[in-house]
Amino acid sequence: MPDIAWINGVITSLDDARVSFLDRGFLFGDGVYDVLKMCNGRTFAVKEHLDRLDRSMEAIRIRPSWSRLELEEIIRDLAAKSELLDARIYIQVTRGAGPRKHEFSSGMTPTLAIFIVLQQPFPEEIRKAGVRAITVADERWAHPQIKSLNLLPNVLARQQAEESGAYEAILIRDGELVTECSSSNVFAVLNDTIVTPPTDGRILPGITRDLLLKAAREANYPVKEDYLALTELQSAAEIFVTNTGVEVLGVVELDGKPVGSGMPGRITGDLYRLFVSRWLNA
Amino acid sequence: MPDIAWINGVITSLDDARVSFLDRGFLFGDGVYDVLKMCNGRTFAVKEHLDRLDRSMEAIRIRPSWSRLELEEIIRDLAAKSELLDARIYIQVTRGAGPRKHEFSSGMTPTLAIFIVLQQPFPEEIRKAGVRAITVADERWAHPQIKSLNLLPNVLARQQAEESGAYEAILIRDGELVTECSSSNVFAVLNDTIVTPPTDGRILPGITRDLLLKAAREANYPVKEDYLALTELQSAAEIFVTNTGVEVLGVVELDGKPVGSGMPGRITGDLYRLFVSRWLNA
Repeated sequence: MPDIAWINGVITSLDDARVSFLDRGFLFGDGVYDVLKMCNGRTFAVKEHLDRLDRSMEAIRIRPSWSRLELEEIIRDLAAKSELLDARIYIQVTRGAGPRKHEFSSGMTPTLAIFIVLQQPFPEEIRKAGVRAITVADERWAHPQIKSLNLLPNVLARQQAEESGAYEAILIRDGELVTECSSSNVFAVLNDTIVTPPTDGRILPGITRDLLLKAAREANYPVKEDYLALTELQSAAEIFVTNTGVEVLGVVELDGKPVGSGMPGRITGDLYRLFVSRWLNA
Repeated sequence: MPDIAWINGVITSLDDARVSFLDRGFLFGDGVYDVLKMCNGRTFAVKEHLDRLDRSMEAIRIRPSWSRLELEEIIRDLAAKSELLDARIYIQVTRGAGPRKHEFSSGMTPTLAIFIVLQQPFPEEIRKAGVRAITVADERWAHPQIKSLNLLPNVLARQQAEESGAYEAILIRDGELVTECSSSNVFAVLNDTIVTPPTDGRILPGITRDLLLKAAREANYPVKEDYLALTELQSAAEIFVTNTGVEVLGVVELDGKPVGSGMPGRITGDLYRLFVSRWLNA
């Protein structure tokens, strides 16, 4: 049974899964989420994702009514029930359902809503060719480091990319500072150094970003977490984006202009292979 | 039958109303809303609210699959079914349900979700005493003029007010510019002039704000839509907030310090009575 949903203990097919109209996730985007993947029957970086989910909940003051162990068991059960080997596991926590008013009471029971769906590995031919990206103004709120459900700016940026024939929208703050993308982190290769914006509260601290940085440092790549200007991005030898789904994906065109040679760069390819061997096939 | 919900044509009690887990309102806050009131059996400012809902939908590119006339008829039917005389009518439109991905397809069917609940008039004793307010950083995204479901910053600001024993949180942009409140617009009386921030894209254009400005100008009050500094707010003779629920409500304490005499001001009271006689009992 693929495409399963689990909402506060009730298991259904994903298409049949329902939540209350009065759920604050629906009314206010008052919640957080995280996304895990399963490759070849193994869940990946579960601790890192669930740690981040804990931090997200804490940041908006949702206190879970379940333990980490219980959540891990729910995930394991769903994975087993689905019989999927390659899957995406989406976990959303909202503040719960109640009469619509902005302020919330401390006694609310959070909603825990999970689904698991088939997720094929990222297509090899797209990885080889690389993808287009456009730059879009970063119009998000002051706390994008929280993985909240307030995703309208991300949705609109990604849609703009899609309609430009691009895969991703790279977000630019105040016209000059590169932050991240609509649903991935961004890296540039500048003078043979791998540069990515720091986790200073203006980006979502990606798990793949973090694991890639670790692997690159272990392998003695020159790596810098530093501010990245739009002009630097425009002159980068290589650009790539990272997230759980794409892992490490080369950007070969930025706002219609080729990046480097117009093909995914050598360092991008090396880092992708490094990431896979260090973390996925370890 | 009070507390009725209507979701894509299905009528239930509000408590039983359900939406899809995959609704983009729940997953991304990808939607907009508006709130109407009914006083003494009459809906108020329906055209203004539905015009604003249209502008909100257009701003995030949701095309309704219903006409204005159909929506008005649904509202009338719900009002009749509920048999309520004083009510709040909440209307939410999302981009619809579909597989979770940021970008959206043009072929999606929007979700129209409405509820009607009893709403007593705002308590007279609170209006007479006035309310406390605190100032909180305005941490919202770049387009607060859109009445979207991305309300987490508003929720957190209002909660902070609640926990400080205050009724509202007045939002301050960049440490100095007064914009509006978590769910109301703000006015100050400075040198006998009524000042409120302009609709320059940084505030939600409140219907009550607009109707009050019209009434005040007709009655020859000195009125200015202009930028309002935090220091000006702190030295204002009177402060009041407006929205559909509270109409015109005096703020008598700002961040723990009394505003003016510490009681709702004369102009605040006059404007409240003017608003009621010009628009509600007209």
